[in-house]
Amino acid sequence: MTTLYGYFRSSAAYRVRIALNLKGLAHDQAPVNLVKGEQRGEANLARHPQGLVPSLVTDDGLVLTQSLAICEYLDEVHPEPALLPADPAGRARVRALAQLVACEIHPLNNLRVLKYLVGELGADEVTKLAWYRHWVAEGFQALEAMLSREAGSGDFCHGDTPTLADLCLVPQVFNAERFECDLSAYPRIRRITTNCRALDAFARAAPGAQPDAG
Amino acid sequence: MTTLYGYFRSSAAYRVRIALNLKGLAHDQAPVNLVKGEQRGEANLARHPQGLVPSLVTDDGLVLTQSLAICEYLDEVHPEPALLPADPAGRARVRALAQLVACEIHPLNNLRVLKYLVGELGADEVTKLAWYRHWVAEGFQALEAMLSREAGSGDFCHGDTPTLADLCLVPQVFNAERFECDLSAYPRIRRITTNCRALDAFARAAPGAQPDAG
Repeated sequence: MTTLYGYFRSSAAYRVRIALNLKGLAHDQAPVNLVKGEQRGEANLARHPQGLVPSLVTDDGLVLTQSLAICEYLDEVHPEPALLPADPAGRARVRALAQLVACEIHPLNNLRVLKYLVGELGADEVTKLAWYRHWVAEGFQALEAMLSREAGSGDFCHGDTPTLADLCLVPQVFNAERFECDLSAYPRIRRITTNCRALDAFARAAPGAQPDAG
Repeated sequence: MTTLYGYFRSSAAYRVRIALNLKGLAHDQAPVNLVKGEQRGEANLARHPQGLVPSLVTDDGLVLTQSLAICEYLDEVHPEPALLPADPAGRARVRALAQLVACEIHPLNNLRVLKYLVGELGADEVTKLAWYRHWVAEGFQALEAMLSREAGSGDFCHGDTPTLADLCLVPQVFNAERFECDLSAYPRIRRITTNCRALDAFARAAPGAQPDAG
């Protein structure tokens, strides 16, 4: 059985959960508790030398890391429904939207970075929150602009079916809501998120619906 | 003519330069001076709403952002020489190695983040350097482990020809050297970097070889 090693609140694991659900792939979930530090334990490091989640171990023992690489793998091996459009220009647009979240927002705001801010830099709660919200705002302003002005946008980030871009967007919005970021300036982001959340594959992937949700 | 909007020291632009060179694609280079703030100017924002580099404008007017999305686009439209292996497992490995750099190291250490550390958080030079080196060490330790223990590694990150992973690795090593990170614990990373740098496509993409090099 394919096993996803993740954590209910990890937005990178959340992306993979959505992909698995959209494609209807049966899988086990094995929680790695990030708050308890299990990601730095021997078992997780053997799968993921960087001590992060998610990793996906396939039926045939392949160990995959990095959420976007995992989603692209799933899309290549189980092509339907497609997470990327067929045309190279559309694929480039979807990947760029996904990477705007995965390379420009999320890496700055994940747990290990917030811990470094507080621990090594002595940041207080207000400073930490301001940091978090700053990078969400920087990224979402750009994302909103791209979604508003580019012809490829539809009910979802690209067209009228969910793609890799939506898999990144929805977990990022969940995190932004958790940190009480003001999302009023991003109507397009909010509308697409609402459309995604109405789908069973997204609803079942939500952090609160996971077995390890605290 | 295809035009790359970049900056000599931007490691994301550097990745795209290597891809263009490997594939032998003629292109113009249009510098966007990040130190002068040109990335926040109207002309660049029209191409790249996030105010970053690189963006690539193709012959037929397509505007592409996000370096990995651009490289995958080039690989799909100009398949030879391939930047990704043919098998899904190999492709997943190469993407994971690339994303280890592009999602876990580089985003924490780019110019806008270092500026925030110094400006908003009041970090001094020592604190900024420690931050920089911390994220390089975290990432390179994991990358070295993966390159050492995984069968896919060869003269390059994956096998004996350059892939998307090497396109990310070499610019990151360049930056790490610039910030005087100790790379002695990463012999595999150093050997692969040496092999890459021996190739003309990598040498011509190096920051010091660019028209806007200061």
